[in-house]
Amino acid sequence: MFIQLEDIKQAKENLAGVIKDTPLQYSKTLSNRCGNAIYLKPENLQKTGSFKIRGAYNKIASLSNAAKKKGVVAFSAGNHGAGTAYAAKALGVQATVVLPENPVPSKKNAIIDYGAKAVEWGTDSIAMYERVLRFHEEDGMEIIHPFEDYFTIAGQGTIGIEIIKELPDVDAVIVPVSGGGLISGVAACLKEMKPTTEVIGVNSEGAQAMFYSLQKGKPSEVNEVNTIADGLMAKRPGELTFRHTQKYVDRLVLVTEKEIAETVAILAERAKLVVEPSGAASLAAILYNHVNLKNKKAVVLVSGGNVNFRLYSQLLTEYANKVFDKERLLK
Amino acid sequence: MFIQLEDIKQAKENLAGVIKDTPLQYSKTLSNRCGNAIYLKPENLQKTGSFKIRGAYNKIASLSNAAKKKGVVAFSAGNHGAGTAYAAKALGVQATVVLPENPVPSKKNAIIDYGAKAVEWGTDSIAMYERVLRFHEEDGMEIIHPFEDYFTIAGQGTIGIEIIKELPDVDAVIVPVSGGGLISGVAACLKEMKPTTEVIGVNSEGAQAMFYSLQKGKPSEVNEVNTIADGLMAKRPGELTFRHTQKYVDRLVLVTEKEIAETVAILAERAKLVVEPSGAASLAAILYNHVNLKNKKAVVLVSGGNVNFRLYSQLLTEYANKVFDKERLLK
Repeated sequence: MFIQLEDIKQAKENLAGVIKDTPLQYSKTLSNRCGNAIYLKPENLQKTGSFKIRGAYNKIASLSNAAKKKGVVAFSAGNHGAGTAYAAKALGVQATVVLPENPVPSKKNAIIDYGAKAVEWGTDSIAMYERVLRFHEEDGMEIIHPFEDYFTIAGQGTIGIEIIKELPDVDAVIVPVSGGGLISGVAACLKEMKPTTEVIGVNSEGAQAMFYSLQKGKPSEVNEVNTIADGLMAKRPGELTFRHTQKYVDRLVLVTEKEIAETVAILAERAKLVVEPSGAASLAAILYNHVNLKNKKAVVLVSGGNVNFRLYSQLLTEYANKVFDKERLLK
Repeated sequence: MFIQLEDIKQAKENLAGVIKDTPLQYSKTLSNRCGNAIYLKPENLQKTGSFKIRGAYNKIASLSNAAKKKGVVAFSAGNHGAGTAYAAKALGVQATVVLPENPVPSKKNAIIDYGAKAVEWGTDSIAMYERVLRFHEEDGMEIIHPFEDYFTIAGQGTIGIEIIKELPDVDAVIVPVSGGGLISGVAACLKEMKPTTEVIGVNSEGAQAMFYSLQKGKPSEVNEVNTIADGLMAKRPGELTFRHTQKYVDRLVLVTEKEIAETVAILAERAKLVVEPSGAASLAAILYNHVNLKNKKAVVLVSGGNVNFRLYSQLLTEYANKVFDKERLLK
């Protein structure tokens, strides 16, 4: 079973008045740099700082009134937790978010600020997921999965509708990939609305679960993930997201950690956007020639902007030093 | 003599297809924080990274063909230099930009990238301005002043047209002030189009030439400027900009350097925008209660995003450490 364009259109209706239609940002500098017309889709400017609210809201909105009364539960210390908390509050539903023990205080506070209960539990995702399952079994809370769900995928797919509306002659869309929810929805949408659109996914070399799974021909787990892109750390894609990616996505490419790091700084310098490493992977793919595109209208999905300031400052400083040295040498 | 709404409308026509109409960004978090509806006008996302291109382009476009052939000259190592270089190139005019000796390489390169000649001369603004005068007298180049010019003021005023178009029921607009070109144009526009709009200017405590001049009742020079906001360092406003500010601006308030520094980080954290200190002064004024507004629709003009990454990283790190410590204490 695959999601249908109708499901995505319904999601778009559900989300009306809740999310922002983040307007595309054309960048002349980035376009010149890579020989394509580059339009950023800045989901870092989305409510809660990432696209995740789209899927979470659409999922929670689809629940029965009885289920809504029992509340929802998710696990995540990051964008999915914030998206679920915000979406649940907007729908008058109580959310519980399971976090690892000793979470980054600002992330915990953001979830509490959005009106959710924050529960610290365990130190790895297996322990956290077991706690989520107990909330589900004992308290009847509906689990809001970060990607493996039709409604979630349809919610993320609404980005495709906005792209086609704003740039009907788009040639290609480049999307960061982790568990696969975002690219599944966006690709399904684009291939139904405008089948000639090329859809390209991006994994980090340090976290290539979807890339590996496509090679194996089935959802497969990688032994290790190791990346500064903390939004791309899924160790395996879902069954659903794997099937959608296999069917709708033209190709998946890899970028290096260094390319991601530099692109974070380039987005700050040239586009004046604060972007987290996961969100910069898509631009890195086209800037560093991993996608074979020339003279195309390419939409680059910038998925989020919730970055740890210590890491961010470090990336910008390293970039500034490198640019500075290079300029001194060229003088 | 004052600029008229017609002049600003003409500037808007001149700028069509050249600049971006930077869409307002409503921020719920910032709104909640200060008890007003906050709409950011993100001119950091403008071409060349600041509003300066509006005035420079409108000025150069107004020159006779004979003057255009002789070229234009400006002095600035910052936003005005980039705006002038870009605008001149777009109009097929040769620009010369006078910079202080040993400029920041990236700033010099940006000016050269935009097609202008970069001339390093002297170390202070007096020496640089004398060089500009020589280019004018000996080579007939038209001087593009950063603020003291009707066409420049009218160009900056086009921001007012965009605000009223997008948010017709705006109550107040808050604007960073240096030489006064930006606020003169914006205030003249707003007071003609919707006289009930309150227009509030912001100086840094460390650079208060306009504040001091308004107290004195005439354009006056301050002894010293000392601020991290390198776009707010004018030591005296112009005659023209003083008169427009005196006539059209409701009040001018001061913010501290610390407030500016924190607001730079808040804009990164909450709005995901890279903003230079000058551009953050306006939001600082309302966040730290220097403007007496409650339950108003306030547009906060974020004037630019060309920030030195070393300074920027330092501000973000200091902010992160403070938040972190505070959270630890509250735990």
